[in-house]
Amino acid sequence: MIRIGILGATGYTALELVKLLLRHPEAKITALTTRQEERPHLSEIHPQLTGRLDLRLENLSPGEVAARADCVFCCLPHGAAAKATPDLLAGGAKVIDFSADYRLNDAATFRQWYHEEHPDPQRLGKVVYGLPEWFREQIRGAQLVANPGCYPTSAILPLAPFLAKGLIEPEDIIVDSKSGVSGAGRTPKLPFHYPECNESFSAYGVGTHRHTPEIDQILGRVAGRETRVIFTPHLVPMDRGILSVIYARPTQELDQDTALQVLREKYDDEPFVRVVDHLPATKHTAHTNFCDITARMVRGRLLLICAEDNLVKGASGAAVQNFNVMYDFPETTGLL
Amino acid sequence: MIRIGILGATGYTALELVKLLLRHPEAKITALTTRQEERPHLSEIHPQLTGRLDLRLENLSPGEVAARADCVFCCLPHGAAAKATPDLLAGGAKVIDFSADYRLNDAATFRQWYHEEHPDPQRLGKVVYGLPEWFREQIRGAQLVANPGCYPTSAILPLAPFLAKGLIEPEDIIVDSKSGVSGAGRTPKLPFHYPECNESFSAYGVGTHRHTPEIDQILGRVAGRETRVIFTPHLVPMDRGILSVIYARPTQELDQDTALQVLREKYDDEPFVRVVDHLPATKHTAHTNFCDITARMVRGRLLLICAEDNLVKGASGAAVQNFNVMYDFPETTGLL
Amino acid sequence: MIRIGILGATGYTALELVKLLLRHPEAKITALTTRQEERPHLSEIHPQLTGRLDLRLENLSPGEVAARADCVFCCLPHGAAAKATPDLLAGGAKVIDFSADYRLNDAATFRQWYHEEHPDPQRLGKVVYGLPEWFREQIRGAQLVANPGCYPTSAILPLAPFLAKGLIEPEDIIVDSKSGVSGAGRTPKLPFHYPECNESFSAYGVGTHRHTPEIDQILGRVAGRETRVIFTPHLVPMDRGILSVIYARPTQELDQDTALQVLREKYDDEPFVRVVDHLPATKHTAHTNFCDITARMVRGRLLLICAEDNLVKGASGAAVQNFNVMYDFPETTGLL
Amino acid sequence: MIRIGILGATGYTALELVKLLLRHPEAKITALTTRQEERPHLSEIHPQLTGRLDLRLENLSPGEVAARADCVFCCLPHGAAAKATPDLLAGGAKVIDFSADYRLNDAATFRQWYHEEHPDPQRLGKVVYGLPEWFREQIRGAQLVANPGCYPTSAILPLAPFLAKGLIEPEDIIVDSKSGVSGAGRTPKLPFHYPECNESFSAYGVGTHRHTPEIDQILGRVAGRETRVIFTPHLVPMDRGILSVIYARPTQELDQDTALQVLREKYDDEPFVRVVDHLPATKHTAHTNFCDITARMVRGRLLLICAEDNLVKGASGAAVQNFNVMYDFPETTGLL
Repeated sequence: MIRIGILGATGYTALELVKLLLRHPEAKITALTTRQEERPHLSEIHPQLTGRLDLRLENLSPGEVAARADCVFCCLPHGAAAKATPDLLAGGAKVIDFSADYRLNDAATFRQWYHEEHPDPQRLGKVVYGLPEWFREQIRGAQLVANPGCYPTSAILPLAPFLAKGLIEPEDIIVDSKSGVSGAGRTPKLPFHYPECNESFSAYGVGTHRHTPEIDQILGRVAGRETRVIFTPHLVPMDRGILSVIYARPTQELDQDTALQVLREKYDDEPFVRVVDHLPATKHTAHTNFCDITARMVRGRLLLICAEDNLVKGASGAAVQNFNVMYDFPETTGLL
Repeated sequence: MIRIGILGATGYTALELVKLLLRHPEAKITALTTRQEERPHLSEIHPQLTGRLDLRLENLSPGEVAARADCVFCCLPHGAAAKATPDLLAGGAKVIDFSADYRLNDAATFRQWYHEEHPDPQRLGKVVYGLPEWFREQIRGAQLVANPGCYPTSAILPLAPFLAKGLIEPEDIIVDSKSGVSGAGRTPKLPFHYPECNESFSAYGVGTHRHTPEIDQILGRVAGRETRVIFTPHLVPMDRGILSVIYARPTQELDQDTALQVLREKYDDEPFVRVVDHLPATKHTAHTNFCDITARMVRGRLLLICAEDNLVKGASGAAVQNFNVMYDFPETTGLL
Repeated sequence: MIRIGILGATGYTALELVKLLLRHPEAKITALTTRQEERPHLSEIHPQLTGRLDLRLENLSPGEVAARADCVFCCLPHGAAAKATPDLLAGGAKVIDFSADYRLNDAATFRQWYHEEHPDPQRLGKVVYGLPEWFREQIRGAQLVANPGCYPTSAILPLAPFLAKGLIEPEDIIVDSKSGVSGAGRTPKLPFHYPECNESFSAYGVGTHRHTPEIDQILGRVAGRETRVIFTPHLVPMDRGILSVIYARPTQELDQDTALQVLREKYDDEPFVRVVDHLPATKHTAHTNFCDITARMVRGRLLLICAEDNLVKGASGAAVQNFNVMYDFPETTGLL
Repeated sequence: MIRIGILGATGYTALELVKLLLRHPEAKITALTTRQEERPHLSEIHPQLTGRLDLRLENLSPGEVAARADCVFCCLPHGAAAKATPDLLAGGAKVIDFSADYRLNDAATFRQWYHEEHPDPQRLGKVVYGLPEWFREQIRGAQLVANPGCYPTSAILPLAPFLAKGLIEPEDIIVDSKSGVSGAGRTPKLPFHYPECNESFSAYGVGTHRHTPEIDQILGRVAGRETRVIFTPHLVPMDRGILSVIYARPTQELDQDTALQVLREKYDDEPFVRVVDHLPATKHTAHTNFCDITARMVRGRLLLICAEDNLVKGASGAAVQNFNVMYDFPETTGLL
């Protein structure tokens, strides 16, 4: 039984994580932290969990958490995560980090997009990116895993097989993504106030969203060449789910069957990527760790359409999948 | 042309009010206030109004507003409204107050439900309650009108005709009301954070909601006897609309046709109350000043069902209706 | 391993049931039926299930299903269910019926509310009502279980402890219930067309809803006296969840602590009923088999507030709970 | 006072149209038709209109409508519209057609996308496209106006100024559009059944949507060269609103200020197009005839973002705007 600590247990990804881990036969949650003054019972924060887990949130130091847990899921925001992680690792814990802190390879890119200095720059470039479909072997032996961003997962999984084979232009990629509001986190702010975003649809962070360099970095690694995606996120009036529609220019003649075949060859043995003929909808993947992908050719352009649940395959489910790989449990444990 | 001032112009009722007044041929908005530091253009707060009204919000004193406006719609929260109103009146302005400050008749009841001292207690008991269907003549001559609460309107309009005729027991009334989230205002708070209230339904303020004494007071006045309603509000995952289902015990044999007839006799000449045979839905009244009411008899109990738009008939539309009565404009001006 | 058949596998309750059974270690789905011409793969109907269950829907007779399955979950509409059930039982299968066909005790009441003759009247009065919290022992030995209606569960669980102890008047009970739209089933009809019911709230079936006699019958059995509830269902613009607010008149002095204590005494050992201090929201129980209940006293009236997921505790989760009881599996198997 | 007939009055565009015309001082609705057997009062179909318009739907021939109306708004589906229109025109009525029947210039393109023969092919190529911002003068004298499709309006208004000046490549345009569900009409179908599309987001009609040739034709006319847009529509879980995000490749160096300037030069005098600096949201234009547009440069690509209400500027509001132009009323009459 692996003892689990969760840093930053008040948010939506932590709630989703707890629900998944309560079903996991090899995991036992032993520490929950918050940086707030009050130290409520977890079910006071998330009434969904009433009667499910008899544990209070505590204001523990990373060292204290490492003493109580074998594996720590760090749900802190960027910046805070990289401040806590060195002590967690020093305390002997394995760490799965939900923030962007260890996803980028260099401190300069981090500074450019996050407008602050990275607290733990010397680790950058050495941390495995927790996308098992592409980096499973490195995850297996890792002590620290950078759990992917929700949008990047929905962009990388469909695009990577084509870039790996040189089938599309790396500099003519548009990722038009739409996300449910839970992706914005649990802190009340005007744009996510119900009467503001309900019955409304809008783009945000156009040209400036921080998942852009993450997508470029991983795709570039797969492609062996620099990519420059144009990434446009939108807010959808729904709780959860991401749909990305991706427009790419083939480098050579490509038809729809071939495109689907490229996806199938890569993913047919993957337990959580479903290459489908129909157009995916976020509802098909809601509350699951599945990512549904299809391909279409329209007027010579390749369209890739990808649906996932931003809180599961886009966050906590992916983290549990990484956990399973790290500890050599069957990869679907607790996830079906 | 009546010059209009609006105090507290950043909220949803003010937005709705501005949209209505822009269509009103006899009104011209001349002053908008906010208590915040910034003094933005109205369309920076409400992008809906881009190009519609070239006016900034200002941090004006009540006296300054009264100098610029003939009639002031006060959209301030309770407490603040009664602090501003005396100066508005002293400055010669007519006032339509959206808060609860002048709805209750005595300071003790105010203190009991609002847990603070009333800032202007000597006016209590002398202010007309702005429900034209019942108090039109008093509104006509008023300088200060207390605009009704959203829930009370949906309870009083259906119940009052029966209480006025002694047809139902005044002490056995249940008002089970459901409201869209805009009723909670525009300040972001966790219960109204999109992922909290979307796809959820819950009761709140059970037994403690401040509209309870307002409903009792007006119904009691109509009945000529004290009423003691049980009032249960709920939050519906939608922007706007209130549906109240009311359970009352007839004092004598009553059938459905007679019940509908009681409603029709009272309201058939009213421009904004529609007595209908079908079951009303909030959508039928959304974005209108209509209130739809029907009656049913179930196992000897009278059920009254009432739908309205909480921001229109429940707030800003009612205020414009009061404005029309006060200034002797046709009552539907700007409202159809 | 119990072989499972599902009749009427195209609906939402069947989808929910399949998802639950796929997690159940003792269940294996072996037959799925539809009465439609086409015999699609299950995942063509419910793309959520892509890759989860490799089975086609078939147009099988009840006898054929009984030959393939030990236990049959019958998700057919009322009328059709009681036509299929005799053959299922004759074929040796155990049956858990989701329809209303075996919930009522006599054919006359069925005729009165369903406006048709009951196809299998001689069984009425002998079938156990599948609410384990009240009828667990009878379910254990049953070959046929009538799975409760979604609304009745939310009314009976809160009310029964008080009626069993004579603490409330059996003839002064109001059940004001609100349900998400999935409760209306998967057949497209105008009232459930998205632009009709989205952003709208309304009551329906006032005084005529068929769950009324079901509630009365079970409550009457518990109370040992006839009850006459007034039941008002509403449609909430959300996918799933029921919240019932119940108004009852105490027969004697009753305070809130005592009321909560009555609930706790009955349900503290129940795995799926959570008596809570806070006001429950449907979201707290969404996608779970939990039913959250609280009590309040308002002006001498007892208010009981109950939240559940209409598709889980209100249908498929309850059915799996019954299945566990019938086969002596731990009652929470597959449900946490 | 212009007498108005509406063909196909049961749908959402007709409902929106009636609401707008009831506010129009120069219009009087005199005939409403349906092809259904029943001839209900309009408010039985649309309870919103209870008490607003005392008129029944009738099963009238086009000739009968033309005898009663000066101007006919034809809300019939494609195919049916072009069967009715010749008789309407022969009867002396002016016609504003909401269908696609008269939007395309040639019968072959119609056949290719609509898979049927055009019923009135000889008129094709001679009918004015009712986008006043581009074709006002032709609309003024027209007897028949083809009201634009909802998606095309949101694509053409932002793109046309750039194509007219040769500032973007006509063959590298992606229009990624998202629409509320009312765009699918009022006929219940499974994809628009509430529990199917609520809490879900998906693309549909990828590469096959019939608005594609309409967009290409109008843009091609403005550009003076053929365009080949890639058009991807999506379904958003909300009632109304379209947001289009458009990706175009500049033919020359272009910065954001210049791009905004291009839009402002074209639209600054237009009453219903608002060129804005902020990112538009559909909610900013809901229930209005405004279309909000902005521009961004991202990695060398021009992004145009456009929000409108699909039922107003995308349908009935545009129709009333055309009506105003045709009859020389001030263009904003009834629309502000």
